[in-house]
Amino acid sequence: MILLSNIQILLVATTHPGNIGGAARAMKNMGLTDLGLVTPKIFPSEEADARAAGAEDILRNAQVFDSLDEALADRQQIIGASARLRTITWPQLTPRQCADKISTGENLKTAILFGRERNGLTNEELERCHHLLHIPCNPEFSSLNIAAAVQVVAYELFQSAHATNVAVPPSVTEEEMANGEEMESFHGHLIQTLYDIGFLHERKSSPTLIRRLRRIFNRSGLEKTDIHILRGILAAVQKRPRHTLTAPTTPPAGKS
Amino acid sequence: MILLSNIQILLVATTHPGNIGGAARAMKNMGLTDLGLVTPKIFPSEEADARAAGAEDILRNAQVFDSLDEALADRQQIIGASARLRTITWPQLTPRQCADKISTGENLKTAILFGRERNGLTNEELERCHHLLHIPCNPEFSSLNIAAAVQVVAYELFQSAHATNVAVPPSVTEEEMANGEEMESFHGHLIQTLYDIGFLHERKSSPTLIRRLRRIFNRSGLEKTDIHILRGILAAVQKRPRHTLTAPTTPPAGKS
Repeated sequence: MILLSNIQILLVATTHPGNIGGAARAMKNMGLTDLGLVTPKIFPSEEADARAAGAEDILRNAQVFDSLDEALADRQQIIGASARLRTITWPQLTPRQCADKISTGENLKTAILFGRERNGLTNEELERCHHLLHIPCNPEFSSLNIAAAVQVVAYELFQSAHATNVAVPPSVTEEEMANGEEMESFHGHLIQTLYDIGFLHERKSSPTLIRRLRRIFNRSGLEKTDIHILRGILAAVQKRPRHTLTAPTTPPAGKS
Repeated sequence: MILLSNIQILLVATTHPGNIGGAARAMKNMGLTDLGLVTPKIFPSEEADARAAGAEDILRNAQVFDSLDEALADRQQIIGASARLRTITWPQLTPRQCADKISTGENLKTAILFGRERNGLTNEELERCHHLLHIPCNPEFSSLNIAAAVQVVAYELFQSAHATNVAVPPSVTEEEMANGEEMESFHGHLIQTLYDIGFLHERKSSPTLIRRLRRIFNRSGLEKTDIHILRGILAAVQKRPRHTLTAPTTPPAGKS
């Protein structure tokens, strides 16, 4: 179980304040609150506030450091985001593996470093890291915007932190779903109606047709309310006068 | 196995051109190339180009549409991103489930819709969708920046596309699935028929009812043959003599 409050997102020497604001928003969206800034070029700034769009509290509480040393002083686990797949062998994690790693190293004070817009983290900075983090992506165009990279990593952390109660609520409760008996009654009603309106016996391949109709509605996962509405429609169709084979009572105007 | 080239990211009525550029960059990072823009407020723009930061080719090739109808005409699978967890039950996917879903419906022409900065997609737009997509996040601060949301979804699609898992053989081929235009024609025919038989105007809650009916058939993932059969039934219902008691001689405005 990930403790999101133990994770600091640490932006190193960020040039564009908009990216700092975007990162703050991405963090807050995913329940992260601890932002660190190592020698940001411009901070605070209106542009950062604008891009934070509701996450200004993250910016207000951000810690600003004069050096990476200072920032990492109390960190027990250091992970560096790197766009380049380096030749030097280094433990390299995907965002998902990173979340798993943090999840197993329970309660370690962790920093996740994101480097400069142009050229990421320096070799010296990467050497401070226990693990490198690489977001798998298009090798022809592998440089993610910093806020976007923070978003992906924060997203994986949030999913991992909330894995036991995944946020998507069950869309339908058990009681609301039609049961087998209700489905059968509905299919019976449907088929009867199709005979009533003369649709079914006109066809030679009725069994195939009926099977296909069953499939359409079975696939749909009908709720009790759906059945109620559909049967209401069938009843309305059945209520109409019977088909008189040769002499319709009104002229057969195709569309009125 | 996901074919990324069959997936269109469709931004609906985007206000800020920076977000269009950011979305283009996020797409290219993850190997997506097909960007659609429905009535963007400002496009093309220098700001979009700046934020694209190397993904200007995506912007140059973007299709701009005058309406959602036009955009969805050839789409066989429509997925709408939604921040709000709606009370109305609708199949709702996480980004990962979305990638799985696309992965199993191999080669379907898919559109993933992202709505306006302020208030997302309208109910009418959401009703066009087969599935809703929700990015699990902090419930207290659940509105992601559009480019950030595109980044997360594109990231999951890329991971899925490059996973070495065994692909589930698709049960239905591309040609067999109904596209957006066929689905709309069907829904129009269905609703017209319900007016014809006097079912719809009897009800007070028609919009809710129509939404529910749409959902039933959208969920089902209709094939062209299904549409053919269902419309055959509707035509058979319409051919029957009109209700003599109360039905109006002309259908309500709008439909022919």
